[in-house]
Amino acid sequence: MTILGIDPGLATVGFGVITQKAPNADPEFKDCGVIKTPPKISLGERLLMIKDDIEALLDEFKPDAVGIEELFFTKNVTNGLLVAHARGIIVEAVHRRGIPIYDFTPPQIKNNIAGSGAADKKQMQTMIQRLLNLNKVPKPDDAADALGVAICAGRMA
Amino acid sequence: MTILGIDPGLATVGFGVITQKAPNADPEFKDCGVIKTPPKISLGERLLMIKDDIEALLDEFKPDAVGIEELFFTKNVTNGLLVAHARGIIVEAVHRRGIPIYDFTPPQIKNNIAGSGAADKKQMQTMIQRLLNLNKVPKPDDAADALGVAICAGRMA
Repeated sequence: MTILGIDPGLATVGFGVITQKAPNADPEFKDCGVIKTPPKISLGERLLMIKDDIEALLDEFKPDAVGIEELFFTKNVTNGLLVAHARGIIVEAVHRRGIPIYDFTPPQIKNNIAGSGAADKKQMQTMIQRLLNLNKVPKPDDAADALGVAICAGRMA
Repeated sequence: MTILGIDPGLATVGFGVITQKAPNADPEFKDCGVIKTPPKISLGERLLMIKDDIEALLDEFKPDAVGIEELFFTKNVTNGLLVAHARGIIVEAVHRRGIPIYDFTPPQIKNNIAGSGAADKKQMQTMIQRLLNLNKVPKPDDAADALGVAICAGRMA
């Protein structure tokens, strides 16, 4: 089965794709990357770009399950609201295809991957690299984060 | 020209449609109502309902401009994030059709309609009723709010 993990954002959406032979089998790295939108275009234009790129990922990888990181904002509410605009589009696009969605908060992801809800970025990246048997840490950070979400979803799917 | 106003929400999206013979001409009431989604279904399912109903409104009224209320949350961040999921879908759907979007914060709408950013709900509803020459206040409240947004957008379009 193929699992897509998404780290939502407005400027940068991270995505990570893994496969596993069965539910709970070891995850294998397939692909990862980011969708970027320029800050100087309208919100509508940025959302349209994200929508089209997410549809293209769903077309290309045909995931059996999608993990999407939950938003967890306490400080920058304005930025959180903008990211939520993008997240809504992603959730709707995936749900329309009837693909199961698994949501995880950042502490859930950290706990699931590194055994502690307070794991730092380096610990997380090291664990993601190890779990996927890669010879270096996936880059950029948002793509690595999305692989972490995919691994979590793979454990639930 | 036809102008659609939208008061975004996850449980209730208000919409109001007005027409005006020219930019800045008197607005005339055309229609108003709400899109409702039940709380017990998944977020994905609710977003899908909102998306489909917004597309149906755009098909039916073919607006020349759309006004969408901005989110303005300071207290309930969690609820604000959910509403922003819905708002993102609405913005993307409208922008994809190439229809100009006008955003207004709640104080901007109040100031525009009732001459004060601190106008209360009753003042606003009375002014909306008067501006649209209706014999009673439009119901429900979210539909009236959306008519207010449409009137604001009509003044900019």
